[in-house]
Amino acid sequence: MLDLAIETSIDAFLGGRVEAVQPAKGHHRSGLDAVILAAALGTAAAGRVVDLGAGAGVAGLVLAARAKRLRLVLVEREPDLVACAIEALAQPANAGLAGRVEVVRADLLAAATRKAAGLEAESFDHALMNPPFHDPGRVRASPDDFRARAHVLGEGGLDDWFRAAAALVRPQGTLATILPADRLPAILDACEGRFGGLTILPLHPRVDEPATRVLVRGVKGSRAAMRLLPGLVLHDGAGSSFAPGLVAILRDGASLADIHPVWSDPQWGETATDPS
Amino acid sequence: MLDLAIETSIDAFLGGRVEAVQPAKGHHRSGLDAVILAAALGTAAAGRVVDLGAGAGVAGLVLAARAKRLRLVLVEREPDLVACAIEALAQPANAGLAGRVEVVRADLLAAATRKAAGLEAESFDHALMNPPFHDPGRVRASPDDFRARAHVLGEGGLDDWFRAAAALVRPQGTLATILPADRLPAILDACEGRFGGLTILPLHPRVDEPATRVLVRGVKGSRAAMRLLPGLVLHDGAGSSFAPGLVAILRDGASLADIHPVWSDPQWGETATDPS
Repeated sequence: MLDLAIETSIDAFLGGRVEAVQPAKGHHRSGLDAVILAAALGTAAAGRVVDLGAGAGVAGLVLAARAKRLRLVLVEREPDLVACAIEALAQPANAGLAGRVEVVRADLLAAATRKAAGLEAESFDHALMNPPFHDPGRVRASPDDFRARAHVLGEGGLDDWFRAAAALVRPQGTLATILPADRLPAILDACEGRFGGLTILPLHPRVDEPATRVLVRGVKGSRAAMRLLPGLVLHDGAGSSFAPGLVAILRDGASLADIHPVWSDPQWGETATDPS
Repeated sequence: MLDLAIETSIDAFLGGRVEAVQPAKGHHRSGLDAVILAAALGTAAAGRVVDLGAGAGVAGLVLAARAKRLRLVLVEREPDLVACAIEALAQPANAGLAGRVEVVRADLLAAATRKAAGLEAESFDHALMNPPFHDPGRVRASPDDFRARAHVLGEGGLDDWFRAAAALVRPQGTLATILPADRLPAILDACEGRFGGLTILPLHPRVDEPATRVLVRGVKGSRAAMRLLPGLVLHDGAGSSFAPGLVAILRDGASLADIHPVWSDPQWGETATDPS
């Protein structure tokens, strides 16, 4: 048990099957985005996964709970968040995950610091990535504002993150990432020459509203054409309740392919089964 | 009446309100894409429109029939298609359009030939564009295969077309274009630095299928963020019949904003009313 220097809370995911330890305030707290990102991979997925910028580890823990053949490495730069992720692995609810999930503190965006942390090039089958997404110019924050820092991209912007992902996954390995929908041009640019066969899933808060997020997956080195899928609607009706498909993902541990079959493509069969 | 050197057919659009003269064979024939593209602008739109690569003029004629305050210039390079468009303006069904529609033969992709044809820079309020879209490397065609030529992009690819559109429309003028969905990365690249405030409407053949086309509109010089809209589904159920919204566009002359309200954005009010 670590002696955490910050106040934390324990948040349940997948109907209590997973418990995350998250900073009670200040830091960015994970939730919907992280669980949807984790649903990108099918329950039968296998191999090694790296979660780039894992934060407190919500996406990785949720994916580990669903896909029991995966081994995951959660990589995070901020010491407090690394401590949260390690603390989460000590929670009784997560006892079944601890043997398959490793937490590594490293700055992912430089090859030297990746290597020093033992993250070998092309050593992963899959990458998950939920990078910080506000432009530096748009955010006013003091250096001590952790929440803002978690949302601020460095000068290299998204490109640095996609470069790191491409460096870590093997040829034909996969990347799944979730980002604000209006960053789609930068996402497509950052995938150029790295990840192809892109599948873009728009996430709409309601059926008649523009997408607020896109979930994008790609295959390293693929030259297949991009596919733009019918969007996924998060909320039914006018209230705040989630659509049934979302409830299945958030509470029951369904994968995206389970609730949105167009996500499940023969080209991507290997991500839902054994990639190796 | 021109003496057309090729065999043509007369095709009715908007329930017979518009009649296009199209090559009976060989050339690319317009239809669904052109009418959806024309629906991008509201019925109250006003000002001058250029249709880049107008073919036999279907999109321009349909738009002119709907939006009676617009004046249109249809620009096409292929002489046979120019002749078809001129012939169409002589059809009795189109008598109400002839005074507002002009047909110009020109190679749009070079500033010199545009200027020689009287197409002044920044002289249009709106541009429509349905450019040829197969990559040269993908199409095997003899130089005489008009149908293939109409679908082949020159070496400059899409970028040449977007450059031409940006040259012809005034600052804050608009572009609407329809292209295969898998060209979205090239579309976004070609808009960079030219058209912003992009609105992307995916067109899905059926509710559970990836988009085959995207309709994209933008504002010249805008720095507004991109919006990715909920897709429009073309066909209901398993059969070949069109969804009710599509029927309204194809037969009744509805605009996209009429049948898909999210297309109608306050930011875009000027395109549905008077842009000047």
